[in-house]
Amino acid sequence: MEKSDFVIIGGVAAGPKTAAVLARRLPETKITLFQKEKYISYGTCGLPYFASGDINSFEELTLTSYGVARTPEFFKNSKGFNVIVQAEVTAINRQAKTITVKMLETGEIIEHSYGKLVIATGANAVRPPFPVANSPRIRPFTRPDDAINFRQLAQTGQIGSAVVVGGGFIGCEVAEAAGGLWGIEVTLIEKENQLLPYVLDFEMARMVEREMHRQNIKLLTGRLVEKIEVNAEGNPVVKIKGQDDISADYVFLCLGVKPEVTLAKACGLEIGVTGGIAVNNYLQTSDSDIYAGGDCIESENRLTGKKIYMPMGSLANRHGRVIAENLAGTKTEFPGVVGAFLVKVFDINVGSVGLSEQAAKKAGFYVDTVWASFPDKPDYYPEYKTFCVKIVYDNNKLLGLQAVGKGDIFRRIDVFSSFLQNNGTLDDLLNFEQGYAPPYSEAIDPLHHLAAIAKAKSQGLKFINPGTDLENYDGQPVWLDIREPDEVESDKWPYAEKHKPINIPLNDLRNRIGELDVNREIVLICKRGPRSYQATLILKQAGFKNVAIIGGGVTALK
Amino acid sequence: MEKSDFVIIGGVAAGPKTAAVLARRLPETKITLFQKEKYISYGTCGLPYFASGDINSFEELTLTSYGVARTPEFFKNSKGFNVIVQAEVTAINRQAKTITVKMLETGEIIEHSYGKLVIATGANAVRPPFPVANSPRIRPFTRPDDAINFRQLAQTGQIGSAVVVGGGFIGCEVAEAAGGLWGIEVTLIEKENQLLPYVLDFEMARMVEREMHRQNIKLLTGRLVEKIEVNAEGNPVVKIKGQDDISADYVFLCLGVKPEVTLAKACGLEIGVTGGIAVNNYLQTSDSDIYAGGDCIESENRLTGKKIYMPMGSLANRHGRVIAENLAGTKTEFPGVVGAFLVKVFDINVGSVGLSEQAAKKAGFYVDTVWASFPDKPDYYPEYKTFCVKIVYDNNKLLGLQAVGKGDIFRRIDVFSSFLQNNGTLDDLLNFEQGYAPPYSEAIDPLHHLAAIAKAKSQGLKFINPGTDLENYDGQPVWLDIREPDEVESDKWPYAEKHKPINIPLNDLRNRIGELDVNREIVLICKRGPRSYQATLILKQAGFKNVAIIGGGVTALK
Repeated sequence: MEKSDFVIIGGVAAGPKTAAVLARRLPETKITLFQKEKYISYGTCGLPYFASGDINSFEELTLTSYGVARTPEFFKNSKGFNVIVQAEVTAINRQAKTITVKMLETGEIIEHSYGKLVIATGANAVRPPFPVANSPRIRPFTRPDDAINFRQLAQTGQIGSAVVVGGGFIGCEVAEAAGGLWGIEVTLIEKENQLLPYVLDFEMARMVEREMHRQNIKLLTGRLVEKIEVNAEGNPVVKIKGQDDISADYVFLCLGVKPEVTLAKACGLEIGVTGGIAVNNYLQTSDSDIYAGGDCIESENRLTGKKIYMPMGSLANRHGRVIAENLAGTKTEFPGVVGAFLVKVFDINVGSVGLSEQAAKKAGFYVDTVWASFPDKPDYYPEYKTFCVKIVYDNNKLLGLQAVGKGDIFRRIDVFSSFLQNNGTLDDLLNFEQGYAPPYSEAIDPLHHLAAIAKAKSQGLKFINPGTDLENYDGQPVWLDIREPDEVESDKWPYAEKHKPINIPLNDLRNRIGELDVNREIVLICKRGPRSYQATLILKQAGFKNVAIIGGGVTALK
Repeated sequence: MEKSDFVIIGGVAAGPKTAAVLARRLPETKITLFQKEKYISYGTCGLPYFASGDINSFEELTLTSYGVARTPEFFKNSKGFNVIVQAEVTAINRQAKTITVKMLETGEIIEHSYGKLVIATGANAVRPPFPVANSPRIRPFTRPDDAINFRQLAQTGQIGSAVVVGGGFIGCEVAEAAGGLWGIEVTLIEKENQLLPYVLDFEMARMVEREMHRQNIKLLTGRLVEKIEVNAEGNPVVKIKGQDDISADYVFLCLGVKPEVTLAKACGLEIGVTGGIAVNNYLQTSDSDIYAGGDCIESENRLTGKKIYMPMGSLANRHGRVIAENLAGTKTEFPGVVGAFLVKVFDINVGSVGLSEQAAKKAGFYVDTVWASFPDKPDYYPEYKTFCVKIVYDNNKLLGLQAVGKGDIFRRIDVFSSFLQNNGTLDDLLNFEQGYAPPYSEAIDPLHHLAAIAKAKSQGLKFINPGTDLENYDGQPVWLDIREPDEVESDKWPYAEKHKPINIPLNDLRNRIGELDVNREIVLICKRGPRSYQATLILKQAGFKNVAIIGGGVTALK
């Protein structure tokens, strides 16, 4: 029986990363990686962009940056470890410290002995909770073949319409992939009342949903799929509760993924509350000779201390390094996750880090929030782009940030993430020293503004969630638009017809304050939010007690 | 005599910010700001982009984002404080707690009494250390009139050639402003042997210098200007030590700025070692009734504990908030600076945060460095851009980061800055949880790679500074290009003619290692650096003792 010092099961992200670091650290040891699929270490997260036509061929996802294919020979020669593909590990024998492997091409069954074992079996598509007919035109979107299959049909003009079931990341990315270059008529169905329900609060999701509408994606949120059938012509038919069936040429099942733990379970390793393999801070399983990483394990949320399941290629790579260091004898902890996400939805950027308002409340924090919109460089600089940000915090403690828009949200997500990593506070944001030059940023960073407004909020600033149904607002406030008349005209507030706001530009507010009834509730409307903040102070100084800002201004409603 | 609770001297950044926050915090108090110029709170940092033609009119720099002019009326109505422009404060009488003001339009002299005083007098252009003829065509570039004057001449075709004296930020920005849209023939003269000497190490500056060359800017570094005269036609003539005179239609004097402390000095306030006003952590001067902020004060470097002078609009705004909070009774510290810079030089982005290698050595740190080049998203994703990064550290402690290139350096500068703010380590970088999606970033962030390589370096990895004169390299190494043959061909290593490297692609290195003499020094050449890192390990494993990587690969030399 062949024996390796280190055996690794799984060849997408955590597996190859573990093996590569380990081979650098302990070059004299024998390391063998088994991968069930033919492909290894491909850019899984790039599949939607291959499907969309942005990337020409699937092969590009399997090449190194210098054009060399990531074959078993490549890993042997360049990285110094053995890779065996089309090799399905069917059992782990912990007593004997061996694994059983079925060679998929020959059918041969082999045993392989390990010193230490690493499980990196990844994740699988969640099985739909409704009946689905068997058809090559109804598929998940998790594996290369899923993307290759769709792309082939799309580029030969065989798909005129598609349904995407599930409005998470992959669902959004796939909707863009189909609706973009290929011009496929796309309907996206999500059971929750919003897109991206696990990372965005509903009002931030609204901004994403509006972009979907602009791009002619038909959105059906809050709808349950009951069944997917195939009609006489072989085309899928999606049956939805309480509404007409939808026929389409293709259906994507994007219901999320769940950890692939069959092997781990079968050999008696501890499985965590989230369904992922339970590991300690060193990514060691309940068997001290077996480590696990990537999409098959569960993580600890650094903010709540709770276990969560977070399948991300970026985390898988970090797991790989931590496992390799521990196997090489350098005790290294994986510190848990804060949850950082980015997703492109057509022309807008969507990001989230830490806890959403919803998640923070559920976790028992005292939750406060502030919204504002910003340009990503000074307004005087050509071609600035804007975005809307929501910050979630508990007194001084930072909990989360969400940002949606065309502008540079990336820096803010990443900086906020690094502050969360250090138990950051609003004061940390105020003290943040950003790189500044007009082509790239403003002298006062959005993070400074948000922290300052959050601090002011503790002095009585009141915000209205921009996702509120203002059409049917509770109460009879004075709607006060403090923008300049030309802005009011050119950048209409969506509820203007209904509520007919009074327009008093901020600059005239002090002089015309007598026009307002000091006893009425005042709701302020501006472009981005900060001007309303200023107006609040003028009104409070004049004795107004009940003043509110619509978070993020008109920009947050576009 | 008029009296204000708070008097502020200076109306560009720190002054108006102090007044605005103070007016929000203490709306019932009287706040008066005196500004010598006609303009107030204009976007100083935007002046190069007005000069360049990117911004249409100077007025755009004086407007709010919603198009309202920042006049004294605006500040009174919208922000709640008094502004008096064209009012030069000529003296501070600390005993009487008054200031003397000369009204520049009328010549009238007034006294104004203060409760607390804030000095935000900014900075002035450094006076050249050589004789300069008096001419409207020889000017610094610090004030609106400097930019307006140049722009007027440039857009009426009166400038065919220009000399920029000084290669700091403003010098670089002005070279672009003149050489870009206006197509002016520009010569830039810098006395040090590199551009941006105070923020970049020389090899990183080389990348900026190459961009200047590509954009047809004539660079003269390491040259001393001796005199600037005016010829018979009224045109400037620049006399340079040891070389021919240069005639030009315009000369920019970009020799940096120095704190404007005339008033502070005259009234006996303590001036710091850097020449800026000395302040404590609360931005209070040696007189407890007087605060100071913005470009007229000195700061403390958080990394070295030493005083430095760092004039930046972004810091000035943060000073303003801190001063206002303290004046309003909320003790608030300004925590010092780490030094974060960005500058655009034509098509490349330049950034630096923390200490350069040079500065870190001078400060007494044990200094180590790593270079590498990166794409800003996966190579398979269309339109990625690259950049080269240098990290400076002392054992595990982070000291500085420099980045130059077309790609997204901003996130890395800002994230590194936030880690420096928390005494960050290499481990913090490894644990950094970045936002990840292929359109925006890679699964393994450049900061992860850099930290991993830095950690490996402690195990004997050797780097050659990419700024090294490899033409005349000391020793007779084997130059080993481990790229693929097509890369060697299409992306020539600049020293290939001279050194004729052997080409063994990384993937063939193990098999062909017998072709190399194990006793010779090996210098590795690749595209970006990480491949050489891998090759080092293969060579070391095979018994090679003397192996070096050229930091940042060929990318760092382009």
